[in-house]
Amino acid sequence: MAEDVFSQRTVTCGALTKADNNKNVILNGWVHRDRNHGALHFINLRDRYGLTQVVVDDDASTELQDVAKELKLEYCIAVIGTVRLRPDSMVNPEMSTGEIEVKAEKIEILSKCPPLPFQIDDGKDTREDLRLKYRFLDLRSQGMQQRMKLRHDFIFACRKYLVEKDFYEIETPTLIKSTPEGARDFVVPSRIYPGKFYALPQSPQLFKQILMVGGFDKYFQIARCYRDEDSRGDRQLEFTQLDLEMSFVKRDDILTLMEGLFGQVFRDVMQYELPVHFRRLSYADALNTYGCDKPDLRFDLPLSDVNELSEKSSFATFKEIVGAGGFVKALCAPKTEGVEFSRKYITELEDAAKIYGAKGLAWIKVGADNALSGGVSKFFAGLESELVSKMDAKEGDLILFVAHENWKKCCASLSAVRTKLGKDLNLIRKGFEFCWIVDFPLFEYNETEGHWEAAHHMFSMPQSQYLDTLESDPGSVKGDLYDLVLNGYEVASGSIRIHDVELQKRIFRICNFDDETAEERFGFLLNAFRYGAPPHGGIAPGVDRMVMIMSEQTSIHEVIAFPKNTAAVSPMDDSPSTLDQIQLDDLHLIINYPKEKE
Amino acid sequence: MAEDVFSQRTVTCGALTKADNNKNVILNGWVHRDRNHGALHFINLRDRYGLTQVVVDDDASTELQDVAKELKLEYCIAVIGTVRLRPDSMVNPEMSTGEIEVKAEKIEILSKCPPLPFQIDDGKDTREDLRLKYRFLDLRSQGMQQRMKLRHDFIFACRKYLVEKDFYEIETPTLIKSTPEGARDFVVPSRIYPGKFYALPQSPQLFKQILMVGGFDKYFQIARCYRDEDSRGDRQLEFTQLDLEMSFVKRDDILTLMEGLFGQVFRDVMQYELPVHFRRLSYADALNTYGCDKPDLRFDLPLSDVNELSEKSSFATFKEIVGAGGFVKALCAPKTEGVEFSRKYITELEDAAKIYGAKGLAWIKVGADNALSGGVSKFFAGLESELVSKMDAKEGDLILFVAHENWKKCCASLSAVRTKLGKDLNLIRKGFEFCWIVDFPLFEYNETEGHWEAAHHMFSMPQSQYLDTLESDPGSVKGDLYDLVLNGYEVASGSIRIHDVELQKRIFRICNFDDETAEERFGFLLNAFRYGAPPHGGIAPGVDRMVMIMSEQTSIHEVIAFPKNTAAVSPMDDSPSTLDQIQLDDLHLIINYPKEKE
Repeated sequence: MAEDVFSQRTVTCGALTKADNNKNVILNGWVHRDRNHGALHFINLRDRYGLTQVVVDDDASTELQDVAKELKLEYCIAVIGTVRLRPDSMVNPEMSTGEIEVKAEKIEILSKCPPLPFQIDDGKDTREDLRLKYRFLDLRSQGMQQRMKLRHDFIFACRKYLVEKDFYEIETPTLIKSTPEGARDFVVPSRIYPGKFYALPQSPQLFKQILMVGGFDKYFQIARCYRDEDSRGDRQLEFTQLDLEMSFVKRDDILTLMEGLFGQVFRDVMQYELPVHFRRLSYADALNTYGCDKPDLRFDLPLSDVNELSEKSSFATFKEIVGAGGFVKALCAPKTEGVEFSRKYITELEDAAKIYGAKGLAWIKVGADNALSGGVSKFFAGLESELVSKMDAKEGDLILFVAHENWKKCCASLSAVRTKLGKDLNLIRKGFEFCWIVDFPLFEYNETEGHWEAAHHMFSMPQSQYLDTLESDPGSVKGDLYDLVLNGYEVASGSIRIHDVELQKRIFRICNFDDETAEERFGFLLNAFRYGAPPHGGIAPGVDRMVMIMSEQTSIHEVIAFPKNTAAVSPMDDSPSTLDQIQLDDLHLIINYPKEKE
Repeated sequence: MAEDVFSQRTVTCGALTKADNNKNVILNGWVHRDRNHGALHFINLRDRYGLTQVVVDDDASTELQDVAKELKLEYCIAVIGTVRLRPDSMVNPEMSTGEIEVKAEKIEILSKCPPLPFQIDDGKDTREDLRLKYRFLDLRSQGMQQRMKLRHDFIFACRKYLVEKDFYEIETPTLIKSTPEGARDFVVPSRIYPGKFYALPQSPQLFKQILMVGGFDKYFQIARCYRDEDSRGDRQLEFTQLDLEMSFVKRDDILTLMEGLFGQVFRDVMQYELPVHFRRLSYADALNTYGCDKPDLRFDLPLSDVNELSEKSSFATFKEIVGAGGFVKALCAPKTEGVEFSRKYITELEDAAKIYGAKGLAWIKVGADNALSGGVSKFFAGLESELVSKMDAKEGDLILFVAHENWKKCCASLSAVRTKLGKDLNLIRKGFEFCWIVDFPLFEYNETEGHWEAAHHMFSMPQSQYLDTLESDPGSVKGDLYDLVLNGYEVASGSIRIHDVELQKRIFRICNFDDETAEERFGFLLNAFRYGAPPHGGIAPGVDRMVMIMSEQTSIHEVIAFPKNTAAVSPMDDSPSTLDQIQLDDLHLIINYPKEKE
């Protein structure tokens, strides 16, 4: 047995109060701050549980004084000492241990620390790659500590709720068959079978459906998923989702379950009360009213359809677009103190709109008594009160228009304007606004490939009224699909699934998978459907994004212990990296390095 | 919104009792059994929650009769009907729903099922590959359903206990740097960086240590781990461990935590009371007493050291081996009704011993009044009572000896005999016998490679009394290592870790990693140790094996929803499989197919 090589804590750094006065204690932790008043040393000792002030008195032994002098930030130490009350003037009511301090009798240095590469705070001023390289230091910051705890609390609260609702958590394999559709698969070469590969799952989709066929009725899993996508700020190669599936359900069962789940989880974890039911918007209504299918409902600023008014106006551009079957939509930016609706600002708004396809952003200022001025106001002469009433506009407001022959582009462009206004005009309320988007189109036309493809994925059920017209009119088919949106982010996506082989094959065919290819790729799912598959459906909230929003962050890197950077690299362990030749040989691989361009 | 395309259950198949008499209900489930008494149909309808008897009366409508006739095993159906009491003679007290039946008014076929490839029972008679190919059917068996529930319950109970003990569950990355040592890494080619690879973790070892450096104090994770090992019955490419790590701890803190954890989990999940503390055996004592470091303590049958008696005997073989510094060990197989200690049986025991290096198995039968007979008895003339007393032998017992110059081989050979006797003589008590094995050697000499290597892994702390002699006498160094053994299986392995750069480098050097290679492979860990690393330690129970033992199975395939077979293949989805040329090109890979041997 090892002898005791360090003095082990009897109490954590967050525990001591005046009730512990005169107690002999041992603390273990890190030097968080170190102040030196002559021969008097104050050390703020930190661990996960809090901070305790340690004092080396000026009458301390030379030995102790010497150790105290040696201390530097982030040294890991053991302090043996006695609890005493702080003088009244030194009491810190902000600290749980603010009434006491520990008079050090002995200090052991457990391990040293060189000068820090950056200050351990919330990394606001530190380059991200430096934070990631020294993640073991960055993780000591209060922000990272709190967010890792929030993530832990969130996930555990989800589990607890689902366990109480009789769900089983079942682990599905992560070395599976490659069935790429949509994103690329990460693959794992087999050493035993030259030329063969396992794939890492993009989600447990097929396996959770097979669990339903296997009779598990209610399944969930906190599942690691993998997508080999080109890097984007908000994406990671691996991510975590709360994956769930239920048998014998209809859409509203899933929606109600999720409302109950997040209601309880937000109550437990955030002490935040959500409404019993979340607002529901059809895909069409979401686009018409907010311009997008993931509206931020923390502010209103709805879009209006002004086709009719545009036709009555004398503005040729609008009239032409409406005449050609196009759309004119408008929103009313409210007068806001400190924000001037200047030409420059309107140009900024226009730039936001143009990213999504708008050719321009028309505008009109609203004056007193329904007077309109500037921009395209002259074309609405005689229509002033009708327009002001339609837009519910007030003096000082700014009406903004986008016209486009394409409905989606018209909506998306004005949505970008709405989003920018929400921020700039301080319209965003504090809190969490969930909503459901339902009745999505089942198919989208892929212009590049020249065929229809699944808008969500190929396993979602078409709504039954479209069953006869799937092939003849794919574009109009709505699916039993639902997205959960929180504060303008899509946080979950789900559907009622197909459980019938023939219907599944029809969908595959519409998506350009002939029967042979479908059998080759998805034969095991089709086979499962042949053996008494139950009706089923599910959903999969993204854990990273949920926790990011809950902790008021804008990057998922802030809620992942060891994320890759935006270049898909981990600066800490320097992965990905090259392999030994032996490893490559074992795996029967030769690297086909791209030729240098000459 | 979809119209309601099936009649959704109002109650599950495990819920109805006589209190529900006359209630109108809808059930969804599978046809578990279907009996036909003339025009009277009895259908046992099954879901995850139980079985309910459905009756189609002989006066049912022709339409309903026709549907009932169409039903076959494992059809998924909805039954609309009325609960009624069974006639007294038909009450089944073994079923929770055994007092009632549901008189069907309508049956909807939700999906059909062709003739089954095998009977859905506990798969005792079915070839495993067939079970795995049709896993969606196999999972419907009572055994698989119960084991998946047990696994779920076990994991959730572990989580609950650790959460209550203030642990955070933190997800570590699964696309990491390849640092092979021991087993081979599975790797994932990078598309963005030609020739570079991520590796799948063999365990979260380095990351959990870095989390301790990051100040998280108490971490756990139900972690998926990956090892590219040659297939063995009890191994999977991917497996699950309960990975945990704590800061500022000593060995006994981890042992006590685990005793508390499994105590609570066995109570919650199995209604089984474990002792407050588990037996502790040093590695040396375990080998001496049971012949191996994972003894099955559900039976006694200890090994005895009979070197002294052997020297006194006239058996030249034994005397020579003892004279040359070797070992003679013996055990006493108790007389057992129905088991004859025949020549044939003793040969079977000898065969078991020889696998582990014994050259033979000497034996002596014990008669009345300490009489010895057969085998090597004549060499122990005059030592009868001493031997019988030493071995605590009784009339009818069989004493078995192994002699070997190598202590480990002597122990292991006799351990194999002990294991076989345990089964054959019905010595194994019901229940769960945990024990700790401690004080393991830190290093083992690798004869093939010609250098020392870590017996467990390179991050384990040598016991402090050996710090000065690490390099001069690696073979005698004991580590702060501990294994948890349950019913003869190693179920967890852990250690107090090194947290000092210089000590870590000394261990690397002893294990033949020069400083440069160590920096290249483990630089990020060494770097973390430089920045105030706390003392820390941990352990990692294997979930698959724990649940296997708890459910009294002998293969982990029985407790994994979708295992690979022993050839590392999934017969259901047929992975691993080949990739498209486009995928290979994207990943910059060429397959180096092995040349056919001519």
